[in-house]
Amino acid sequence: MDMIHIVDLAGTFVFAISGALAAEDKDFDLWGVFILAFVTAVGGGTLRDVLIGSTPVGWMKDLNYIYLITASLPLVYFFKKPLVRFRKGFFLFDAIGIGLFTILGINKTLGLGLSPVIALLMGVVSSVFGGIIRDVLSNEIPLIFRKEIYASACIAGGSLYLIMSQFMAVTGIYLMIPIGFVIIIRVLAVSRQWSLPFEPRT
Amino acid sequence: MDMIHIVDLAGTFVFAISGALAAEDKDFDLWGVFILAFVTAVGGGTLRDVLIGSTPVGWMKDLNYIYLITASLPLVYFFKKPLVRFRKGFFLFDAIGIGLFTILGINKTLGLGLSPVIALLMGVVSSVFGGIIRDVLSNEIPLIFRKEIYASACIAGGSLYLIMSQFMAVTGIYLMIPIGFVIIIRVLAVSRQWSLPFEPRT
Amino acid sequence: MDMIHIVDLAGTFVFAISGALAAEDKDFDLWGVFILAFVTAVGGGTLRDVLIGSTPVGWMKDLNYIYLITASLPLVYFFKKPLVRFRKGFFLFDAIGIGLFTILGINKTLGLGLSPVIALLMGVVSSVFGGIIRDVLSNEIPLIFRKEIYASACIAGGSLYLIMSQFMAVTGIYLMIPIGFVIIIRVLAVSRQWSLPFEPRT
Repeated sequence: MDMIHIVDLAGTFVFAISGALAAEDKDFDLWGVFILAFVTAVGGGTLRDVLIGSTPVGWMKDLNYIYLITASLPLVYFFKKPLVRFRKGFFLFDAIGIGLFTILGINKTLGLGLSPVIALLMGVVSSVFGGIIRDVLSNEIPLIFRKEIYASACIAGGSLYLIMSQFMAVTGIYLMIPIGFVIIIRVLAVSRQWSLPFEPRT
Repeated sequence: MDMIHIVDLAGTFVFAISGALAAEDKDFDLWGVFILAFVTAVGGGTLRDVLIGSTPVGWMKDLNYIYLITASLPLVYFFKKPLVRFRKGFFLFDAIGIGLFTILGINKTLGLGLSPVIALLMGVVSSVFGGIIRDVLSNEIPLIFRKEIYASACIAGGSLYLIMSQFMAVTGIYLMIPIGFVIIIRVLAVSRQWSLPFEPRT
Repeated sequence: MDMIHIVDLAGTFVFAISGALAAEDKDFDLWGVFILAFVTAVGGGTLRDVLIGSTPVGWMKDLNYIYLITASLPLVYFFKKPLVRFRKGFFLFDAIGIGLFTILGINKTLGLGLSPVIALLMGVVSSVFGGIIRDVLSNEIPLIFRKEIYASACIAGGSLYLIMSQFMAVTGIYLMIPIGFVIIIRVLAVSRQWSLPFEPRT
């Protein structure tokens, strides 16, 4: 199991925990928590796979995804308070996760012969639609529609990755450059409370 | 047309009626009622087919599904009151339906070479996601997120089916064993008002 | 680029503008507006493609769809007021669009060897599910569930197209007949405020 796969699984786990915490906030029962953890963790990649026609979808080919998502439930059950307190500690892992999700999504899409513009879009979909599906299932307007969350960081890092790919093979340590860029944009967006209002001029 | 297919169609019909009744409760018009009956009846199997890559999805290959769903509308239109009064009478049919949906979903998934864990999950998806999509389209938090409905019975019956399959060909009359198990769990869950709260310990 | 493709792109553009206007009404930010414009414009065709197994989905094969959807944002940003005032002017374009979407959806489905009943249903899905997904993402009950919008016009025009196809090759100028029928039904439905209540008799 290579480094990329490990980071992918770690990102999935962090997303599952955040989904389980969100479900618990809403007084969902065991099944509600499981389903919300599941869609938050793999919903984005699943939608991407369905749209580009890469089925059976990704998480069906490696049971570790399901095991990790399932493991997030006892973790939240026994350690909710420390997890919530540690939530900010997730931040870095979360940012690494979306950076990697974006690039994995781009690569998978390019691998099917689709254009870089579509690949970039699918990279963003991989990162943000887990949260959108989570919010729709929770009967809330998706957070991302009103607050800059991930999408700009994904676009920035994904674009850098696509540009770099024109000149070199972006693998191994070089992957840290676009992923680092996602993290930087993400940190800036949060610390400076970036927002992207859309207020027509007329 | 074999017995399994007949029970599958009957289960679809019962689900369509329950979807149409739910839509009527919300004052939907004709199209709203049709769409809600449709997604309630075949939404779970459709999502399963899309995720495992078995497309065109199942109900496109046998028009009887569409005819039965369509037939549920005049039935609800002319016989709403007796149907609502008879709702509890649906209970057994409904339980047989989800038992069969679970096992059909498992078989279809195994048939594509996917693992038993994924197959079990897809069996549950086949049974419960019709209701989840119905609730999302009705702008409500899915009932299953807060109340034990089907999922535990599907998991229990589906697991039994998978275990039995290790030792024998589970066909014909033997199918009644896991399906009966689904019905028993379901009856117990309702009569004893089982719930699966998720209340973290810290 | 033939006439049909141009009308398809024009319909997509009109739908994107209406999606962006709807998002702006809800105070979504830039990403919210983009995503809502996107799903309104191509959501119906995307769902159709996923259900019939025609992936990667249609808009991935011609970047003009993405470019037009993206272009709808600055248009709404700079010209919201005139656009809103001109909304009724969209009406004809919108009606031509759904007429064409219906027939393109029917053709694509028939091309995969599926039956005319399924094709007609997929024609309707192509036209109406963009709006349904838009409403679900906006956390509202889909408008079409309570108010006759498009579906009856699509069914009428699509059925006429299927009947004509039995007797002749419906291409070129002849396409104007079923599309014109969609427009007529749509105009009648709006001007006479057609409704399709579903009020059970018992």
